[in-house]
Amino acid sequence: MAEKALLRALKGETLATPPVWLMRQAGRYLPEYRAVRAQAGGFLDLCYNPDFAVEVTLQPIRRYGFDAAILFSDILVVPHALGQKLWFAEGEGPKLEPIRDAEGLKPLSRERFHERLAPVYETVRRLRRELPAETTLIGFAGAPWTVATYMVEGGGSKDFAHAKLWAYRDPAGFQALIDLLTDSTIEYLSAQVEAGAEALQLFDTWAGALPPEAFRLYAIEPARRIAAALLARHPAVPLIGFPRGAGMLYAEYAATTGVQGLGLDTAVPPDWAAAALQPKACLQGNIDPLLLAAGGEALVRTVRDRVIRLGGGPYIFNLGHGILPFTPPENVAALVEAVRRPT
Amino acid sequence: MAEKALLRALKGETLATPPVWLMRQAGRYLPEYRAVRAQAGGFLDLCYNPDFAVEVTLQPIRRYGFDAAILFSDILVVPHALGQKLWFAEGEGPKLEPIRDAEGLKPLSRERFHERLAPVYETVRRLRRELPAETTLIGFAGAPWTVATYMVEGGGSKDFAHAKLWAYRDPAGFQALIDLLTDSTIEYLSAQVEAGAEALQLFDTWAGALPPEAFRLYAIEPARRIAAALLARHPAVPLIGFPRGAGMLYAEYAATTGVQGLGLDTAVPPDWAAAALQPKACLQGNIDPLLLAAGGEALVRTVRDRVIRLGGGPYIFNLGHGILPFTPPENVAALVEAVRRPT
Repeated sequence: MAEKALLRALKGETLATPPVWLMRQAGRYLPEYRAVRAQAGGFLDLCYNPDFAVEVTLQPIRRYGFDAAILFSDILVVPHALGQKLWFAEGEGPKLEPIRDAEGLKPLSRERFHERLAPVYETVRRLRRELPAETTLIGFAGAPWTVATYMVEGGGSKDFAHAKLWAYRDPAGFQALIDLLTDSTIEYLSAQVEAGAEALQLFDTWAGALPPEAFRLYAIEPARRIAAALLARHPAVPLIGFPRGAGMLYAEYAATTGVQGLGLDTAVPPDWAAAALQPKACLQGNIDPLLLAAGGEALVRTVRDRVIRLGGGPYIFNLGHGILPFTPPENVAALVEAVRRPT
Repeated sequence: MAEKALLRALKGETLATPPVWLMRQAGRYLPEYRAVRAQAGGFLDLCYNPDFAVEVTLQPIRRYGFDAAILFSDILVVPHALGQKLWFAEGEGPKLEPIRDAEGLKPLSRERFHERLAPVYETVRRLRRELPAETTLIGFAGAPWTVATYMVEGGGSKDFAHAKLWAYRDPAGFQALIDLLTDSTIEYLSAQVEAGAEALQLFDTWAGALPPEAFRLYAIEPARRIAAALLARHPAVPLIGFPRGAGMLYAEYAATTGVQGLGLDTAVPPDWAAAALQPKACLQGNIDPLLLAAGGEALVRTVRDRVIRLGGGPYIFNLGHGILPFTPPENVAALVEAVRRPT
């Protein structure tokens, strides 16, 4: 069988039609997702139940024939598996019992890590069996800085005040948290590969909040360590780094982390990315999810623009951030059509 | 008398010690500000009462001897003067009656614009008289895109969904709002100069949320128009543009808007800025306000780093975003000391 399109792109091949998938393609904008979600109960029950998680992962593949399926899970299962209390308050997002200093790290432990994550690995195993032959299975994890922000703030945050104050006032203590997360992420992603993941993505959603010095310490260096460890263990499995909001530090991230793919956020100018980043990595992105929600002529025009400007090198079509819940499903169909029939 | 340091930097001069001021230097972190705020009543009462507004503008000058004072006001006085309802709910930030389409623009009018803003101009006039001879008086306005987000969302927002959906679905209607704000901003800033402002800053706080196409339309083009109109009317008064979060589009903004100064957000790497931006404009920035709040050795080290990396060309020391309310006032003193006695 011919190699899957997404894996060819991540190996550096320029394809006539870029493979396409969308961040949060399994999600609340789909009525069939909302039906399973209602059946599952809480959000974590959905993540930890392989029957439900497999089903919602497959839903957008059936509907749109995306070139990749991404494991349905949440970046916060890692702190949860390390022993931090985690719950999802309806309509409020994740809540954790915050950890604010080195002392707070002591109760965390990797002892039951893989045991707690076993349902996620089971989901990956089943997905690999059930996906169409041409569809790539992507595993993922949150990057250490982004996961750390939730662990320290106790949930989402506007300015990451507690995480940054800890990092600035006690760099050694905060580094212990980053190191714990870096090591745990390596183990977690390796186990996903052993269960059947064919490519991996590392989501650093809040990387853009870091000043350059901190970006190097907490975004670049952990990604470099994760990429190196995965390359040593699983040389055939590519890693896509997504340091959202990195600005011109995308260039340094691309040059020094060793990732094979680079997720571009909505703000990255495609011509700059093609010139400065594409020689180093396969690019992925970067339509504004709100443009997808708006739909119409502007969406189709911008999709074609990205295919032209980024498709001259290794490229995977995607958004620059996750699909929004109020997105009309027919706009997603129009996007896929515009990628695959560009004129 | 010798020309003021801040104005010399904005004319392109490299100074031995960079002038220093801080965004939101008049604010809640100062006990004397909180005392006036309690006396004034509502936040808008503070902005529109020249006695109070002059006093809080002067407070940080007395305490720290900053090289510049920035008019105490709010970016939302412009939509307010155009006739949009505006109020500040205690602890919740600004609230406006949202405008979501071209029809919603009809009640807005420039008829009573300067009349409603007269107390702001009076504050500027008094400040110019009362400030020390070496202190530059900076006037300011919100940039059209940033002000538009508040007008359309009806307040602060996480993803600017309504503003972007309007822009994507009805570009002509949204452009009418941007044009109205561009013209109004030119009038507002000109009137501040006529009242005594010696330099101006245009705050585009949410520019980083715009994809490149929209950044060119709604951040660069309005800034270019504003800079050109002000240059024609007041050629001696420099304009500092602050397109926060612009990433690598800072270069295009610097090259095409014609601003004399460029505010750098916390994410901009100083070496890149010195090489790519400083030949085009005087730079201003870019310490993380959370590093100022943390204080200590890391603050002093990073202050000295910025003075070295950016001080080799025209440079104004500042933060990359506004001072946070929980900042210890003694950390601000330590920052000023580190800028002025770098070793």
